[in-house]
Amino acid sequence: MENQPIGFLDSGVGGLTVVKEAMRQLPHEDIVFIGDQARLPYGPRPTDQVQEFTWQMTNFLLKKNIKMLVFACNTATAEALSVIKPHLSIPVVGVILPGTRAAIKATHNQRIGVISTEGTHKSQAYVEAIHARNPDLEVMSMAAPKFVPLVESNQFDTPLARKVVEETLAPFKNSGIDTLILGCTHYPLLRPLIQSYLGEDVQLIDSGAEAVSEVSVLLDYFNLTNSDTQHVGIKQFYTTAAPEMFDLIATQWLGLTSLRAQQVHISGDQSWKRN
Amino acid sequence: MENQPIGFLDSGVGGLTVVKEAMRQLPHEDIVFIGDQARLPYGPRPTDQVQEFTWQMTNFLLKKNIKMLVFACNTATAEALSVIKPHLSIPVVGVILPGTRAAIKATHNQRIGVISTEGTHKSQAYVEAIHARNPDLEVMSMAAPKFVPLVESNQFDTPLARKVVEETLAPFKNSGIDTLILGCTHYPLLRPLIQSYLGEDVQLIDSGAEAVSEVSVLLDYFNLTNSDTQHVGIKQFYTTAAPEMFDLIATQWLGLTSLRAQQVHISGDQSWKRN
Repeated sequence: MENQPIGFLDSGVGGLTVVKEAMRQLPHEDIVFIGDQARLPYGPRPTDQVQEFTWQMTNFLLKKNIKMLVFACNTATAEALSVIKPHLSIPVVGVILPGTRAAIKATHNQRIGVISTEGTHKSQAYVEAIHARNPDLEVMSMAAPKFVPLVESNQFDTPLARKVVEETLAPFKNSGIDTLILGCTHYPLLRPLIQSYLGEDVQLIDSGAEAVSEVSVLLDYFNLTNSDTQHVGIKQFYTTAAPEMFDLIATQWLGLTSLRAQQVHISGDQSWKRN
Repeated sequence: MENQPIGFLDSGVGGLTVVKEAMRQLPHEDIVFIGDQARLPYGPRPTDQVQEFTWQMTNFLLKKNIKMLVFACNTATAEALSVIKPHLSIPVVGVILPGTRAAIKATHNQRIGVISTEGTHKSQAYVEAIHARNPDLEVMSMAAPKFVPLVESNQFDTPLARKVVEETLAPFKNSGIDTLILGCTHYPLLRPLIQSYLGEDVQLIDSGAEAVSEVSVLLDYFNLTNSDTQHVGIKQFYTTAAPEMFDLIATQWLGLTSLRAQQVHISGDQSWKRN
């Protein structure tokens, strides 16, 4: 089982920020990634639809014989993980608890900010996870609905992006937080702009990167780590939309020269209803 | 089950360095600790004896209704964890993989040092765990048999300790390592002397403290985290020897003013033979 791939799912290219960290920390592991670009953004969608789409991606990855599943998407983690996890026999990892743990470890002044999609923000998943650990921490949570479209349209390092980042994050400026959770896996692509606007005194927590540490712990715990250290992990990328834009962003972000995503259709899959 | 305590075992007081980190990261968790001071050090003992003693401590903790077991001892982790873990229905965490992961993440020049007891050193557990992840890393492993007795006799900040540290670690001085794993949970008490001798350029990895991050991941993964955030974790300490020295070191190390360890006798327990 240790030679099987790890599956990663996201609404779009954001999950690649998690894949990038996995490639660094776990170079021998095979990876299968699916981004549901045809139906993004997930943030504004109703919960039952997020669950349906996430089930469809999960079923697609299960057919690829994965040994572990990573919800590389905060919205899917907040709205679908607790529903899907009990049905699966493989370990399932989300991004919210790892981001929460890292932020609690990082803050010195007990004031944490969170930015996320509307769905994640409304679910209060981060606020609840933080307060479940320490009710005395002050948490300032906000939705940043314009960030995902910026990243998916490959405009994440443009003057427009800078303007949107500054407008969106204005309430955090001088708010006294010393730690900001990037509560959507798309946001690390905007990290330079976010850090530059908020200043070096605010620590940015990349919840996706933190999730890879959890993947590593669970691979070891369940004896699933690929022990073939000569093996260079094989990466397969799938998207539900036309792959050109995916390839452009993924090549640039992952530094892989010959990346080719394949387009797949998963929206007809109704098998999740049996679960 | 979430309200049950976490069990920690060690040959002596060294495991308290793990408990200290657990108290910081997981303040709502109850803790039961046992140190087998009557029979330390474990380092020079044959493997079957380390396994027997570790089984006896494990059985003692299981009767305390623990929800998770932490081998807060590198020798027990190296020589007994893989034998005992398959028999238990609760999660079991050792200190070697967490230390390994942290060292691989920390090194920049790919040269890692390891100091440990004779037993851990002979088992090659660290060297194998590091090379299983990356065979290109250079690992320099050494036993430091004089360190545990120094700590257990409360001499860890004396001129004698400084002399022993300098003599023992001389081969690492100017060896080119940039990261040193403290591969025994007793060694963090010698950390100031070790850091001062090797210099600030060598990063010291406290494998026990790293293990607490793994405990946190697994508590969350198995829904075992105590959700009563008003609860201040209750700590119980047991030792197999006279408790005076234990109390002295533990009070000083943990900063708990009214710590009282209870002496227990576990050497008669033969029930592990049934496993």
